[in-house]
Order: sequence, then C-alpha cells, then structure tokens
Amino acid sequence: MVEITPSSSFSLTMRLQLPNRSGMLAGVTQAIAALGGNLGQIDLIEQTRKVSTRDLTVEAASTEHAEQIVQVIKALPDIKVLDVYDRTFNLHRGGKIAIKSRISINNYGDLAMAYTPGVGRVCQAIAQEPEQVYNLTIKSNTVAIVTDGSAVLGLGNLGAAASLPVMEGKAMLFKEFAGIDAFPICLQSQDPDEIVRTVVNIAPAFGGVNLEDISAPRCFEVESRLRQELDIPVFHDDQHGTAIVTLAALINALKLVKKSLESVRIIINGAGAAGIAIAHLLQKAGATEILLCDTKGIVSSDRLDLTEQKRQFASTKSGLLADAFVGADIFIGVSGPGLVTPDMVRSMAKDPIVFAMANPVPEVQPELVGNDVAVIATGRSDYPNQINNVLAFPGVFRGALDCRANVITTNMYLEAASAIASLVNPVDLSPEYIIPSVFDQRVSTTVAAAVQRAARQDGVARR
Amino acid sequence: MVEITPSSSFSLTMRLQLPNRSGMLAGVTQAIAALGGNLGQIDLIEQTRKVSTRDLTVEAASTEHAEQIVQVIKALPDIKVLDVYDRTFNLHRGGKIAIKSRISINNYGDLAMAYTPGVGRVCQAIAQEPEQVYNLTIKSNTVAIVTDGSAVLGLGNLGAAASLPVMEGKAMLFKEFAGIDAFPICLQSQDPDEIVRTVVNIAPAFGGVNLEDISAPRCFEVESRLRQELDIPVFHDDQHGTAIVTLAALINALKLVKKSLESVRIIINGAGAAGIAIAHLLQKAGATEILLCDTKGIVSSDRLDLTEQKRQFASTKSGLLADAFVGADIFIGVSGPGLVTPDMVRSMAKDPIVFAMANPVPEVQPELVGNDVAVIATGRSDYPNQINNVLAFPGVFRGALDCRANVITTNMYLEAASAIASLVNPVDLSPEYIIPSVFDQRVSTTVAAAVQRAARQDGVARR
Repeated sequence: MVEITPSSSFSLTMRLQLPNRSGMLAGVTQAIAALGGNLGQIDLIEQTRKVSTRDLTVEAASTEHAEQIVQVIKALPDIKVLDVYDRTFNLHRGGKIAIKSRISINNYGDLAMAYTPGVGRVCQAIAQEPEQVYNLTIKSNTVAIVTDGSAVLGLGNLGAAASLPVMEGKAMLFKEFAGIDAFPICLQSQDPDEIVRTVVNIAPAFGGVNLEDISAPRCFEVESRLRQELDIPVFHDDQHGTAIVTLAALINALKLVKKSLESVRIIINGAGAAGIAIAHLLQKAGATEILLCDTKGIVSSDRLDLTEQKRQFASTKSGLLADAFVGADIFIGVSGPGLVTPDMVRSMAKDPIVFAMANPVPEVQPELVGNDVAVIATGRSDYPNQINNVLAFPGVFRGALDCRANVITTNMYLEAASAIASLVNPVDLSPEYIIPSVFDQRVSTTVAAAVQRAARQDGVARR
Repeated sequence: MVEITPSSSFSLTMRLQLPNRSGMLAGVTQAIAALGGNLGQIDLIEQTRKVSTRDLTVEAASTEHAEQIVQVIKALPDIKVLDVYDRTFNLHRGGKIAIKSRISINNYGDLAMAYTPGVGRVCQAIAQEPEQVYNLTIKSNTVAIVTDGSAVLGLGNLGAAASLPVMEGKAMLFKEFAGIDAFPICLQSQDPDEIVRTVVNIAPAFGGVNLEDISAPRCFEVESRLRQELDIPVFHDDQHGTAIVTLAALINALKLVKKSLESVRIIINGAGAAGIAIAHLLQKAGATEILLCDTKGIVSSDRLDLTEQKRQFASTKSGLLADAFVGADIFIGVSGPGLVTPDMVRSMAKDPIVFAMANPVPEVQPELVGNDVAVIATGRSDYPNQINNVLAFPGVFRGALDCRANVITTNMYLEAASAIASLVNPVDLSPEYIIPSVFDQRVSTTVAAAVQRAARQDGVARR
C-alpha cells in the first residue's frame, strides 16, 4: 500500500483520564508520535487532586491506523480511555446544511405578508410576467446539485443515498465560497433519459444546475441534452471545474519552464469525465499535441473499443502509458493511485510538468520524483500546488447567476482559468506556488467577474 | 364586490416629506382614516428646521385601495410623497429561504473532514449500511414541498414558477414552527405519471414529501401512487392538513352546542382536494350524514358527471346548495367567496355551526350571520377561530420524521386533530375560541407527540 500522511479526514478525539503524576501525558504523546499519529488540540476538561481528564485530537493516516493508536493508548498503564469520537463522522451527523428562513414570522401581519393571503399577489405578478421569478423568489441564487451516485468521488457507483454527504459538502462550499444557495438532488435512477427528464421537471425553482459524480460516458449525454433543454446554466463540475483549474495551473507552470501550450506534448491519463474535458479545454486554449490514455494505454485510432468522446482524441501513436511518457512535456493524471513510476517521469522531456491529481493517493508521490520534475501538483492539500475544483465552481456559478447567463460557454471556462492563474503574482510564482490557495478570498469574485465578462462577450448574459 | 377589511397583505410604506407646521401629520392620518386605511408604524426618519421626513405604514384592503390612498396623499397640499414601497413585494424580493452551512470551513482540516477526502468514509458507511443515511445526512429532517402549480392557493393554474413564492413560504413555516428543513420542488409537468416518476427519482435525499397545490382529481392519484412507491411519508396538505384542522375545530364546536358527530347533518361545499379529504376524515371520526356539494349542488347518486372520489359520497338527496342547508347542523365551506346567503344559514337546524373557510373572502361574512349561528369560523386571521393548516402540517411531519414513520395513517390524522382540539382548555372554550392560535407554541410539539403515538400503535414507526 502507498504510504499516506496523517490527515484530519481520519482524525479522532480521545477523552483520557490520567493520574496527576508527572510524565503521564508525555507518555501518551510519545506513544502517539511513535505510531506516526499527528497530535492536534489537547484540552483539559477537568482536574481533581488525583486525576486529569483531557481530550486529545489525533490525526491518523487511515481507519486502521486510527484504531491502532487507540489500542496502544488503551494498553498504557494507568491511562483510561473514557471515550473515542471519530471527528469526521461526528461532523456529518444530522447533515451539513439546513434551511434558513430569511424573514421572521412573529405575528399575523408577518404571516399575511410572507404567506397567505399576501403571497397570492406575488404569485400573480410572476404568472403575469414570468421574468419576475428571478426577482421575487430564490431562483436567481439557487443551484441544483444533481447526481445519480454512479461515480462518487473515486469510490465508484455507491448510489444516490450514499452520495448525499458529498452533495451536502458541495452545497456548503457553494455557500461558503460564493454565497450561493445550492441543494442536493440525488437521483434514484441512473438512466440518462430519466435523469434529463427529472432535472427538466424540477428546473423552475433553480437558477442553475451543477452536475456531479455522474459516470462517463453518460455524463456527456446528460449534460449536452440538459444544455439544450434548459434556459439556465448547466455545468458538470467533474468535467469543467477540473479542466478550468488544471488549465489555470498549467498556464502558470508553463511560464516557469518557458514553454508554450502550442508547442508542448501533453499526456492525459484517465479518459473519463475529467480527462475528456481537460483534453477539450486544453485544445481550445491552444494545445496541439495531446496523448489521451486510458486503462489500456494510449487512445489510438486503431483501437476498436473507443467511445465517441475518446475517438475525438484518438492518436496515430499507440502503446502503453509508459510509451506515452517518452519525450512528453506534461503529464496530467486524473486516474488512479501509483500508476506512474519514477522511471516513466525520468523518460519525459526536459523540465517536465507533472500534475498527479488522483485522490486521495496521487499517480506518483511527489517525494519520489521531486528532483526529476520542474513542477509537480496534486489534488491534495498537504503538498504544494493543490488543484482543487473549489477554485472554479463557486465563482463560475456566481458569475453566471449574476449576469443571468442561459448557458456556460467555453469562453467562460477559458476566462475563469485565466482569472485563477492571474491571482498568482509573477514575483511570487515558483515551482511550489503555481495556483492560489482555495482560501484565497479573491478567487471566487475574480472568477465571477471574468465569467460575467465572457458571458457578455458571447451574448449569453440576460442582464 | 364583497367588502374586506384592510390587511398587512396589502400594506405599503410611504416616505413623506411634511413641512414642520402643526397639523400636517394629522391631515395625512385623517385622510388615510377617511379612506378606510389602517395606520401602522410611523417612523421619524429625519427632521430639519423646516421639514420632517416620515415613513408611514398603511394597511389597505386591496391593490386598488392602496393605490387610491397613495393618490389622495399625493394630492394633499405641501405633502411630498418621496417613495412608496409595497411591503409584501419587498419582503419577497430575492426569496424567503436560504441554505445555511451547519459547519464552518476555515482551513484545510475543516475541508478534509467536511468534504474530500474525509467525506468518502461517510459515503462508504452509508453504502454499506443504507439506514445510516438517516444519521449521517440531512435526510432525517428534510421534506420536499412538491407542487405542479396547478391549483395555487385559490388562484388556479398559475404554473410551477408562479407557485414558488407559496412553496418558499411553506418552507419558512416548516422551519419556524417545527424546525424542519423543507425545500421547494416546483414541477414543470402536470402529468401524474411524470410527477410520480420525478418525485420517486429525487426521493433519496428527503425524509418526507409534502404535496401542495396540485389540483383535484390528479392530486388523489399522485398521492396514492407515491404512498405506494415510496418508503417515506407522503402528505397532501391541501387535503389532510385542512381536514385535520377542520376536525379539530369541529370537535370543540360540537362540545359548545352539545351535539355529537354521529348525530349531526353536515354540508361540505367544495368537492376538490380539501372537501373530499374533510368528508373522508369526518366519516372516519364518526360522522354519519354528510352532504357533499359542488358547483352543481348536492353530489347526488343520480348525477352522471361524478369523479370516483365524489361518487363515494354521493347522496340519495339531490338539489342545490340552498336545499342542502335546510335543517343541516353544520356547514363546512372550502369553496368560493360569498356563495352562502344569510337566508341559507337561517334555514339550518338549531345552533348551527358554520365554517366558512374560503380564502381570502369567506363563503359568508361573519358580520352578516353573527346572530344566527352558534359558532362561526373562517380561514382568516382577522376574525376569531381561524382554521389554518399551519396548526397541522409542521407537527404532523415533526412526529412522522422523529419516529421515522414510512407512511402517515388515518389514525395519525385523527390523533393530530384531537391533539389540536385538546389545547383549548375546557374553561376557555367559547364560540369565539374553538381552536388554538397558530402562534400557540404548544401546538406543533403536541401534534408531533400524538402523531408519533398513533404511528407506533399502527406499527408504521421505524424507530
């Protein structure tokens, strides 16, 4: 198994009772350190003459690792483990979002204005002038997060119910990073006809649709049909969010190695939703030589197993992933853990750029190829250069909603990517800093402004 | 036109500039009073040596009335109307609900627990043990408010978009009165097959379905099919919410006149969703003699135009609404404004009970029959005895969600009605107080407890 570092996603809090003797807490912290756990917050809960009660928060590398730490602490003499909380599960309990009323209802007057009979006049105003739905309801700031649960994170087809924690998380991020009210629509059916029909049916209350975790190739059909049938923006984040942020990072990485997108040879490994969308967007941005690879190697024109989407990028070259690497300038991985060896990276052209974005375990660990690459980026927050969709989708929707775009165009993707790249100041640009932090508060407003501008240029803004 | 009293649903705020001379404000308030407007809040915004700026809030009886008041004030000498706000429209601007994140995301640790990669473990836990969706997501507290916009309030088929202000209002009430997170699902299609299919498709994220403003007879089919296909409670509020509150009021009204449900003759005027549901529930509660009427008069067995639902209540009697009144003990109107004359009421049996619930204008104005009835109730908050669904649906869903009922049974309706009725203390019971106020804070918890109890008796509670 590939070693991964402890993270808060596997963090637990232990409530311990320790005798009031010197060295007792030190013994615990030493044991945790020896096991490779990361100590976080230590709170003193209670102290009597004889004993102290403390909450220790520990980050582990996996569920098994967390369990192992607890067992070792339990075995320490004189230490009592009173309770163990899994902090991630605790935080998800009861869900992560709620509905908030924007108006308080304290008396009959409030009720008569917000609800019956006053609301009737508001309904009639919309019936008479349909555009008023944007002014008098939640529509103008509301996005449906639609999934069928067929490709939940990297975990596969877990189904609608099991995808809900991701969609709630996404709704949180929409709120937190762009003030958008997004709501999870997790669909029982995985049939494209049913998905399209259902989303069209529920569309009136929404100002936009964010498709999420729908597996390829169905996601392509669902997105393109919804774009045709709806007059509100439809955006499949796994495709376009990933493509935008990848392009943003690539723009800055290329500056460092002084190469141009037009002249480089690019490998994209993974020909699902993200890989295909990245290939499309890089092509639109000027890339000329893209080698798309899937589990069978290079997507070559002599293969008979290609979907329509893969065929568009079929190459005259053929071979395995390792063959694609030889002489390539850029590797972009949206595939699986550990698929790339240091030898493959060493076979690349001078100053190679490697984006190993598989989550949570990259295609190649940065530690293994640090000296062989000019720039490396991953999907993880514990390495430099995190390529994270959170940099794109909040601002993209903020911009599209604010100018009431009826569609999101390729120009809007390209401008969003440029906007993200522009936030890295030239003097700060370095191999360890090619992309802004997701907590950089300028990101979503800058992206939104760029997206609005592009929407106006493309004539898709309705106000 | 039937005269109706001013209400906050037609309230406006005028910003006026008045010279600082005595009698100026008095002139304005006299003019408003002379026109029948109700003065509310008067705020002093600014005062200089020469002029005062004040905001006057005025309740009118209709849009035309409000407009008339503004015109008269504008015509007053030396008074400047700086601005006029329609308070109801202002309050609806941008919508009435929002999404709230229950967790703050301030750093990578928060992100790793609430979103990727930590959320992956939560998804897997649900995939392995589907019941966990109730613990680890919003499902257990979330209700879909589903409409097709075909019967919006009493306004008719306004369509999905124009129904959204009502559904948002409903979501506010769910939150305000029972802490439930409800979200509007306004459907493009009015085809029962499509409605059922769409709701089944989006059900995974929801713990319950509240159907709203779907016209009869389609609402009966939609509800019964959804009850069969879903394992979460489905409740058509226009039917059962109205029926529950009507029964609650009737239980107490009958105590006042010392009659029993078994022995009274009841007229129900209006054979749509509400009328049919009231007839059903009163029958289950013990009523034996119900005369259902529609626009053509008594629903009699010799008529050839009856839907399946009406036919269940067809009477051997026939005639017009006025014929039904003769000798009846109870009139329940869920029909239209001014359909009942004082003469009809005077033809009823001794101590008649009249529930004139048409909104906003009742079947008969209470002022016209005050001396001829033992008890009168309406749907309005400006008369005593308001029969308002807000007394039922929040508590019904709170109870059903808390015990994880998979269906809402007739017993649960009956117990909810008894619970509401029980909140009127016998010593307080009077012709002017047969039903608690919607702002009585005991209502939703009392209803929820009764509903839970009934669910357990019926074996439909899953925890």
